Amino acid sequence: MGGDHGPQVVIPAAISTLQRHSDIELILVGDEAIISAEIAKHQFNDKHRMKIQHASQTVGMDEPPSSALRGKKDSSMRVAINLVKEGQAAACVSAGNTGALMATARFVLKTLPGIERPAIITALPTMRGHTYVLDLGANVDSTAEHLVQFALMGSVLAELIDGKPNPTVGLLNVGAEEIKGNERVKEAARLLTKTDLNYYGYVEGDGLYHGEVDVLVCDGFVGNVALKASEGVAHMIRHYLRQGFNRNWLTKIAGLIAYPVLKSFSKELDPRAFNGANLIGLQGIVIKSHGGADAFAFANAINIAILEARKDVPKNITKHLETLLEEQML
Amino acid sequence: MGGDHGPQVVIPAAISTLQRHSDIELILVGDEAIISAEIAKHQFNDKHRMKIQHASQTVGMDEPPSSALRGKKDSSMRVAINLVKEGQAAACVSAGNTGALMATARFVLKTLPGIERPAIITALPTMRGHTYVLDLGANVDSTAEHLVQFALMGSVLAELIDGKPNPTVGLLNVGAEEIKGNERVKEAARLLTKTDLNYYGYVEGDGLYHGEVDVLVCDGFVGNVALKASEGVAHMIRHYLRQGFNRNWLTKIAGLIAYPVLKSFSKELDPRAFNGANLIGLQGIVIKSHGGADAFAFANAINIAILEARKDVPKNITKHLETLLEEQML
Repeated sequence: MGGDHGPQVVIPAAISTLQRHSDIELILVGDEAIISAEIAKHQFNDKHRMKIQHASQTVGMDEPPSSALRGKKDSSMRVAINLVKEGQAAACVSAGNTGALMATARFVLKTLPGIERPAIITALPTMRGHTYVLDLGANVDSTAEHLVQFALMGSVLAELIDGKPNPTVGLLNVGAEEIKGNERVKEAARLLTKTDLNYYGYVEGDGLYHGEVDVLVCDGFVGNVALKASEGVAHMIRHYLRQGFNRNWLTKIAGLIAYPVLKSFSKELDPRAFNGANLIGLQGIVIKSHGGADAFAFANAINIAILEARKDVPKNITKHLETLLEEQML
Repeated sequence: MGGDHGPQVVIPAAISTLQRHSDIELILVGDEAIISAEIAKHQFNDKHRMKIQHASQTVGMDEPPSSALRGKKDSSMRVAINLVKEGQAAACVSAGNTGALMATARFVLKTLPGIERPAIITALPTMRGHTYVLDLGANVDSTAEHLVQFALMGSVLAELIDGKPNPTVGLLNVGAEEIKGNERVKEAARLLTKTDLNYYGYVEGDGLYHGEVDVLVCDGFVGNVALKASEGVAHMIRHYLRQGFNRNWLTKIAGLIAYPVLKSFSKELDPRAFNGANLIGLQGIVIKSHGGADAFAFANAINIAILEARKDVPKNITKHLETLLEEQML
């Protein structure tokens, strides 16, 4: 029910997912009447692979997390997360209110043993492929210990999803030199060198997009600002490019000729292809889709959920954490 | 002597500045032999308007600030700042080591009364013009009080330089809602509403490039990461654009046709036109040029120094601060 478009986007994304994966079933959680009506609009032979789980409430996109948590016990979000808790679903995907989703998921599923704070992680495009970045906004005052836990979770995710052994882990900082940074980052660096993680060192803001590391760790305040500033710059560049090509008939012709290149270029940086952030560190898989996602983007978020469920990311985080604790590296 | 190019860039920038401003004299600080040799390469009738002040040492671009401060008492940087201190120069412009420049300027000039920490401020391009952002990296653990001082300094600068009365001031945050953010930001917001500054509220990372406010305030860690991440994204987009147009002969022809538009577009976002950051909050004007600046960019940094000297930014900050203190708004 969540996001800017609700079932209009979720149902077509669900159908394309089922067409791609023959061994998957999906449970659609929300208002049964609305969901059924939306399903009826589509031609699809395998409709029995979509079950509907009714939920009588929805969480507003601007609703405070506390209100959702206390007052919306039958919201689509809550019911979906309950299904994960009860083992009826392997993962939950939502385009709803991020704060409410995180609060509800944390309350219902609880964090993994040894993980104090869940974090938001997603892959961002770089000049060499992609880099997993966390935390992107779940925690605004992370301690050095939290940053180390983020590093471990990011490393496990990158290794499992990309099949890359020993992914490099960097700490986002204001300079690459050892003396730079605030106390939290310096202490996190000290702690990370003691673990078995492939710690790379400090990475500056531009190093993220150079693809210096596989996993980049930061406090949620910093990560959120960096992510949104990046989106802002990309948006501004598109704005000025469009303006430039619309100036007069000559530039418009140039724009028409350049269009296929500009289009294929923006495909490589298409944020829809990167849709789907993981609320990592919970005893269950919860994927957050962008609220404005279209069906293509939402299907990508579902795909991430499938991948993570198959690889059992939460169990592997716990396993790696236990190893570190046993060998007294943490 | 500083930056990637030293006098090769500074001398032509100095000459073009003198050609533009007939009422200005410049003092070139550094190795006299090197500077004279560089000046000799240029045809310019008004060479007497450039004086050379010899300095026997230079600060390395990667040298720790403490080493520059203690061991380089005759560095070009130190001598130039001394000239400001002694009133022989109205402002200092350097493309050298940022940390060393800040430490030296702070040590020699001291902060303004009522200002605890100097900050780095610069104008960044937005979809509506430009926004002054501070702090960009001088302070990695700013308190709420520091953020309020930054807001005041930014507001004075924007008003004086752009002639815009009562510029809007925003706080960079992870969400626009009141409940969002860390404690420092929330406390700074509370304090700012009590001042006579035109406080706008919270601004998210993308809001910076939408030009939501005239002045955007943040901790130096956050500001530095946001700035560098922005540069990284812009660089990545240029990289993929170039790659797209270089794919084959068809795309190359499209690139040739689109070139004038792409070029004029990048002119609008040319970082060289925005070169020159102010080390604000000191008893004197110190402008930091990007280390990689060319002569055009360095001349822009000199131009900022001229503007700020003419408007006497430090004195006006003190005046505004006194008003706030007298009226018990701080």
